[in-house]
Amino acid sequence: MRPLPAALPTADAALALIKPRVRAQAAYTLQAPEARRKLNQNESPFDVPALIKDAVLARVRETAWNRYPAFTPAELLARLAERHGWTADGVLVGNGSNELIQATLAVTVGEGSAVVTPVPTFTLYRLLSEVFGGRHVGVPLTPDFEFDVPALIGAAAAAAARVVVVNSPNNPTGTPFPEGEGGEGGGGGVARLLAETEALIVVDEAYQDFGGPTAIPLLAQHPRLVVLRTFSKAMSLAGLRFGYALAHPAVAREIAKAKLPYNVNRVTLAAAHAALDARDVFAEATARIRDARDRLLQRLREVAGLRVFPSAANFVLIRCLARPAAEVFRRLVDEHGILVRDVSATPGLDGCLRITAGTTDDVDAVVEALRAILA
Amino acid sequence: MRPLPAALPTADAALALIKPRVRAQAAYTLQAPEARRKLNQNESPFDVPALIKDAVLARVRETAWNRYPAFTPAELLARLAERHGWTADGVLVGNGSNELIQATLAVTVGEGSAVVTPVPTFTLYRLLSEVFGGRHVGVPLTPDFEFDVPALIGAAAAAAARVVVVNSPNNPTGTPFPEGEGGEGGGGGVARLLAETEALIVVDEAYQDFGGPTAIPLLAQHPRLVVLRTFSKAMSLAGLRFGYALAHPAVAREIAKAKLPYNVNRVTLAAAHAALDARDVFAEATARIRDARDRLLQRLREVAGLRVFPSAANFVLIRCLARPAAEVFRRLVDEHGILVRDVSATPGLDGCLRITAGTTDDVDAVVEALRAILA
Repeated sequence: MRPLPAALPTADAALALIKPRVRAQAAYTLQAPEARRKLNQNESPFDVPALIKDAVLARVRETAWNRYPAFTPAELLARLAERHGWTADGVLVGNGSNELIQATLAVTVGEGSAVVTPVPTFTLYRLLSEVFGGRHVGVPLTPDFEFDVPALIGAAAAAAARVVVVNSPNNPTGTPFPEGEGGEGGGGGVARLLAETEALIVVDEAYQDFGGPTAIPLLAQHPRLVVLRTFSKAMSLAGLRFGYALAHPAVAREIAKAKLPYNVNRVTLAAAHAALDARDVFAEATARIRDARDRLLQRLREVAGLRVFPSAANFVLIRCLARPAAEVFRRLVDEHGILVRDVSATPGLDGCLRITAGTTDDVDAVVEALRAILA
Repeated sequence: MRPLPAALPTADAALALIKPRVRAQAAYTLQAPEARRKLNQNESPFDVPALIKDAVLARVRETAWNRYPAFTPAELLARLAERHGWTADGVLVGNGSNELIQATLAVTVGEGSAVVTPVPTFTLYRLLSEVFGGRHVGVPLTPDFEFDVPALIGAAAAAAARVVVVNSPNNPTGTPFPEGEGGEGGGGGVARLLAETEALIVVDEAYQDFGGPTAIPLLAQHPRLVVLRTFSKAMSLAGLRFGYALAHPAVAREIAKAKLPYNVNRVTLAAAHAALDARDVFAEATARIRDARDRLLQRLREVAGLRVFPSAANFVLIRCLARPAAEVFRRLVDEHGILVRDVSATPGLDGCLRITAGTTDDVDAVVEALRAILA
């Protein structure tokens, strides 16, 4: 080990080689103090049961760690396809669904390409679009945080958008994309987006297990649709990172070109299989989380000094009316050991906090704490 | 599960939204028939010892799978920094070093940016550069497959290259980047690349554990240098995917903007720690692989009907002179149960096969098989 020089030279010449749009970006970060109750990342409150962990680990122990995973995890692709009534060559797996958002944007977005998303929404869509040289066009949700489908369609037309990304239910507002009027075959208002724009429509359904319509039935008729799913939320695998994309096989083949080879490791492949084997376990856990979310919504509505927005996801957005959000956030941590997400600095979300629906016990604790703080 | 329609509609309108440079690409694929001896992916022939696996798995069993990994794996970054005498805020970890190649290119390469690499080399540099709109400029190795440093410098100047990517030792030729003439502080000819170009110099040292110079000592004086390392080869973790980048902290901060959050999962983090704990075990395994590589080089030189190229990596490139490479490849699999990599379709590599240095036993088997086939 060499000693570091007292001071490194400045990196100006190197930084001049970084794309200006990237340099102008604030990095995606997370400041998360330690807390007893962790309600800040929309994780499942339920760890994978020990029996399932043991089955995964026993399987992993017998695999060769020195060998790359299979180039194409054919069996897993087939199982995911079967799960959704789709075709295995239209399924791509990723190191979390974020990797597939990234790959989808990488193959479509170049210098100046317009990417339309509702705002506020998950930050990564804008950050990655800009890394690839794209121009992000944000279409505000309504004041009640509902999707404005006509405005999305208008913006896509005006900007000649290459891609529209919709997160449904939307993070951090919890809003499900509306059911469509007269869209045959179901799939909600997404059918309208497909009919009335010429863009690739990417629907990130990370939270769809908890509520709202799914766009998956539209896939068979709409090659311009990409649907993203994750095992990080309802399937309790945030720590192992697994997500997938469903798309027309010809489109999947193109997206795969920006996906790294061997991107899902052996452990995660084994865990994904185990999660599919145990779908009843996770379906029950998901039902409990939905109940907790409903309880959270209902009990928060009884707390004075805040506004509660409807949610179809595993979290609830509130607006603090009686005290500043930053103070409420800090006191939840300091006085009650509860960590939520302070999103109040996001444009349009002044005063807002996002609270993950944990266990029933978590729900009651955060409601009582808010009641005390806002009293 | 819904039945799939008999035929999906064509995807022409969707494919029109994919960038032309991406559509023009052949995807990165691997055709790998089953074989008893797997010498096609430059993996370590030695699995992680059972005791180390058990330690990792016990640790993983106790972690919360439902929780995302830490946003910044501070302890691991510190250990990697210490390993190389560098600073923790100049270390980025990835889901394999490929992810960090991707992130580095994503933040630097836009429409028309020139990316210079020697050719032939690892295909992914070109593929990813083109996905991001870049223009790949390949600088041929010499006929003996050595790096042509003056030509690289000339090409970088002529193309006003934003990035030069060098793989040292080079895959698939095994060539180490030359030691520099008069470069103070060591680091080989990379010092010359830094002095005589204005590009970001990315040195992929995936195979450097097996031989050749390292550019790491140059980092302290050269903010335009990014060095990539992996645990997939010498550290036996190809199946778990772990790599990292070393760079000036200001440059690392920019590259991080194209790296996905939570990109290294809990299991891989635990395995990386365990690999660092057991560095003596892997150092010994690495020495055995180097010996096997030297034995492979030496014994292949005694086989008539082929040419052997020098290698500092854990594989050896040969050119088949007496029989077509495709036939040799096929007969190695069919008659001897040995899978190597047929790279003969790569421009400049006509007649060439790449053979991973496995165990001594693998080395002897592949040499005898080649002798029989080429006799």
